[in-house]
Amino acid sequence: MQLPQKVRIVDVGPRDGLQNEKQIVSTETKVELIARLADAGLTAIEATSFVSPKWVPQMGDNAEVMARIARRPGVAYPVLTPNLKGFEAALAAGAAEVAVFGAASESFSQKNINCSIAESLERFRPVAEAAHAAGVKVRGYVSCVAGCPYEGPVAPEKVADVAATLMDMGCYEVSLGDTIGSGNPANISRMLEAVIKRVPVERLAGHYHDTYGMAAANIYASLQMGVAVYDASVGGLGGCPYAAGASGNVATEDVVWLLNGLGIETGIDVERLVDIAAWISGVLGREPASRVARAVLAKRAKAACAG
Amino acid sequence: MQLPQKVRIVDVGPRDGLQNEKQIVSTETKVELIARLADAGLTAIEATSFVSPKWVPQMGDNAEVMARIARRPGVAYPVLTPNLKGFEAALAAGAAEVAVFGAASESFSQKNINCSIAESLERFRPVAEAAHAAGVKVRGYVSCVAGCPYEGPVAPEKVADVAATLMDMGCYEVSLGDTIGSGNPANISRMLEAVIKRVPVERLAGHYHDTYGMAAANIYASLQMGVAVYDASVGGLGGCPYAAGASGNVATEDVVWLLNGLGIETGIDVERLVDIAAWISGVLGREPASRVARAVLAKRAKAACAG
Repeated sequence: MQLPQKVRIVDVGPRDGLQNEKQIVSTETKVELIARLADAGLTAIEATSFVSPKWVPQMGDNAEVMARIARRPGVAYPVLTPNLKGFEAALAAGAAEVAVFGAASESFSQKNINCSIAESLERFRPVAEAAHAAGVKVRGYVSCVAGCPYEGPVAPEKVADVAATLMDMGCYEVSLGDTIGSGNPANISRMLEAVIKRVPVERLAGHYHDTYGMAAANIYASLQMGVAVYDASVGGLGGCPYAAGASGNVATEDVVWLLNGLGIETGIDVERLVDIAAWISGVLGREPASRVARAVLAKRAKAACAG
Repeated sequence: MQLPQKVRIVDVGPRDGLQNEKQIVSTETKVELIARLADAGLTAIEATSFVSPKWVPQMGDNAEVMARIARRPGVAYPVLTPNLKGFEAALAAGAAEVAVFGAASESFSQKNINCSIAESLERFRPVAEAAHAAGVKVRGYVSCVAGCPYEGPVAPEKVADVAATLMDMGCYEVSLGDTIGSGNPANISRMLEAVIKRVPVERLAGHYHDTYGMAAANIYASLQMGVAVYDASVGGLGGCPYAAGASGNVATEDVVWLLNGLGIETGIDVERLVDIAAWISGVLGREPASRVARAVLAKRAKAACAG
């Protein structure tokens, strides 16, 4: 079994993570978080979201974040843009990459953004067109790729349909989100099999939640199928919006730990990720949620006591 | 890729788990824990350890535990017996299965039990012989199968040597312990490849620690190699003796969740495991450590609020 030699990680902590935290973090902290992630070797950092601050007050400082981050060569700072208005604001703020999203579950689409899957995709078409006209890259997200909080299991073909539509609109990559963490190596592999028939595997990313502790196993299964891009959130920022107290996004340090163990290159320094996880968790007044951060910090504390 | 259709889980929580908890749990609680695990469908529950109470005060009530558990047909209650004296006490207490252990790392063997690997194995030989004479089954443990806290990575051949020696002594099964959780799907697969050359895969069990969150991925990799027995600890009891605050034994509920997802039969009810994890964690004055218990309990709490 040949695994990819290199993997790209997209840290979604500053957006997907902080958006789902109850506490609103200062712009200064966000800018520092993004800078620290680039220092640790991340080459893709989801910076913010251009949505209405009425809906998502956590991202109300989107333009300011974009203005204040020191953009580094070789690092992408994608932002989420749910509609044309958001895209125009993102463009004005200097975004060079945007992300759009569609659900693979009708009920989720209805309850989350109040329209059908087909309607939501049509809403993104002008965003994608405007982005292409402006030379801005577009990344697509599909949510509920393994299961939906309202419907339960989601058919792999449904995921493949949405992913293929997003590619047709001109997305350079589609990120497959296991929004409620109901994925396991079996249903994730079946889902990928269906999607790979419609979208080249080089254009796919895995975005897995660790709610039930399955994310590392799901990434391993996805690596075996050739997927070489993964979304993750430093410190497991964000938690699970569907179950308070449960884990959400897989922690970036857990993913890098796995990839290091497998001898797969990421260019990311896991010790620095643990520093960032400890720092940002401290800002939020708690311990880091990830196994790797906890274990590495415990080992460091022990070494410090012995020293 | 053909995964096993059925998997046997050995819950090591009442012994390996509680032995590594600072708090000493009452005999009554231990007996209840063992009964509840059998109720949930476990068919192998490591009940206690026959070691000196000076070394391991947590297991000082070993004979009482054995006297008080209601033994059910079809359920095995193995106990750890490090030497002949321990074996005799176990036999007197009515144990029908015992376990012996060897390390795959010389430094670990020296620091942990103050003798070489070869000496430790020779020490178990009379235990194995006495067990066979008494019609008592013997299970073998190998520790440090992926890495050692003192030496770092451990050679797969070293693990294979110790596993083969334990089989030669008459163990019916050898459990391969990733004592410090440094395993990942790559080094665990390499280790298994070496061991399977010397010991039939049907005689192997995986005993993986979740210190760095890799246990589910390691089990998935091991299932792909045909290993169909796994040790786990309900609620992740025990933690990591090498790093306070870090995770140790993989939680039984996380393993059963994974296996359910893969369509592999275990005969174990994951909801009841979550109940047990919540209860025993409460006895120890904390929240359950496992992702599955936390997510399931969070979902139940949400349903209760909505209801």
